[in-house]
Amino acid sequence: MKKIGVLISGRGSNMVALADAVRDRRMADAEIAVVISNIASAGGVVKAQERGIATAVLDHRGKTREEHDRAMAAELRKHEVDLICLAGYMRLLSPWFIREFPYRILNIHPSLLPAFTGLNAQAQALEYGVKFSGCTVHFVDEELDHGAIIRQAVVPVLPQDDEHDLAERILVEEHKIYAEAVSLVLGGKYKIEGRRVLEATESL
Amino acid sequence: MKKIGVLISGRGSNMVALADAVRDRRMADAEIAVVISNIASAGGVVKAQERGIATAVLDHRGKTREEHDRAMAAELRKHEVDLICLAGYMRLLSPWFIREFPYRILNIHPSLLPAFTGLNAQAQALEYGVKFSGCTVHFVDEELDHGAIIRQAVVPVLPQDDEHDLAERILVEEHKIYAEAVSLVLGGKYKIEGRRVLEATESL
Repeated sequence: MKKIGVLISGRGSNMVALADAVRDRRMADAEIAVVISNIASAGGVVKAQERGIATAVLDHRGKTREEHDRAMAAELRKHEVDLICLAGYMRLLSPWFIREFPYRILNIHPSLLPAFTGLNAQAQALEYGVKFSGCTVHFVDEELDHGAIIRQAVVPVLPQDDEHDLAERILVEEHKIYAEAVSLVLGGKYKIEGRRVLEATESL
Repeated sequence: MKKIGVLISGRGSNMVALADAVRDRRMADAEIAVVISNIASAGGVVKAQERGIATAVLDHRGKTREEHDRAMAAELRKHEVDLICLAGYMRLLSPWFIREFPYRILNIHPSLLPAFTGLNAQAQALEYGVKFSGCTVHFVDEELDHGAIIRQAVVPVLPQDDEHDLAERILVEEHKIYAEAVSLVLGGKYKIEGRRVLEATESL
C-alpha cells in the first residue's frame, strides 16, 4: 500500500477528491496517510477527520520557512509517505523541503501552465481573454508553478463566465486529473525526458 | 464585398486556407484583395497568383521598418482592404503601421497564447512538456503575440510527437479558426471588453 501525505491550507477540495478516488479504488493500492494543515481552522481538517484520515495542524507562525518545513517533513516521515500532494497549500515550500523529496511532491494549479502562474489564475485567464483554460498537475520544483507537467485538462472559457463560473468548471477537471496523476506517479509507469513526463506505453 | 489583405513571407499556408474559405463561401461576402510578400521567392506568391489573387512583392531590404510598412500600407489602401491578415509574415510591424489600422490587423500564432510567444512555438511547447497546445488568432497590438484573442483551438501533445507532428496537428486547426475569426471580425458581431473579445449572442 502506497502512502500519500496531503498539505492543505483551506477547504481541501482536492484532498477530498483524492480521498474519494482512494475510496472508489481509482488509485491502485494507495491511501492518504496524513493531512497536514498550516491553518487550524482549515475546513479540510474536519473533512479529513470525518473520513478517518489522520490529521496534523502545524502552525507556521513564529517559525522560519525551513523550520516549518522540517516539522512537516518529520510528520510526513512518521507516516512513511511515498508521495506528497499539495492541495490548496498556500505557502511556498523551502528549497530544503523540495530537495528532500525529489520528484515526490505534486501540485495542482488551476490554469494551463505555463500560462497564469501564481494566485487567482482563473481571474488572470478571464482578464487575458483566453478562449480555453484548464488545470495542471506538475512535479514541484524550486520555481513557482514550474515543474515538469504530469497531466493537464482543458475547459472552454464562455462569454458570460465570471471568475466563479470558470473556477467551478476547472475544479471538476482538477478532481479528475489529480487522482490520475497520483496513480501514474505511484505506479511508476512513466519516464522523464527533460521536462516531458511520458507515460509508458507499448511504444516507449 | 469586404476586402482582405494578406501579408506573407513564406509558403502562405494560412493564406491558402483563407482563400479556400472564400472559395467555399465560408467567409460571408469576403475576398482576398491582395497578397503582399516581403520575399520575392515566397511560395505563397505563386499560390496566390494561381488562384487569381493580386500579389505584390515589397522587398524590405534597404528600408527602415516604417518605410517598408508605409509602402505596404499604400498597397493595402490601393486595394481598399477592410482587414489585414498576417499569415507567416516574419517581420515585426512598426508601431506606425499598427496604429494606422486599429483592430484591423489579425495574426495567427501556433500556441495557446499567452504561452510560447515568438519563434518556434511548437518546439517550445514540446520542450516545456505541456499536454495540450493549439493556436490563437488575435488582434495585433504593439507587443509581440499579445493582442486581444479572437479564437483559439486546442490539440493534444502526444508522447511520441516531434516538432513536425505537433506543428502539423496544430496547422489543421489554424486553417479552421483563422477563417472563423476573419468572419467574426468582418461581420462585426462582437464586442471587446478589456482584452476579452465576446461574440455577440442572444444574451449579450
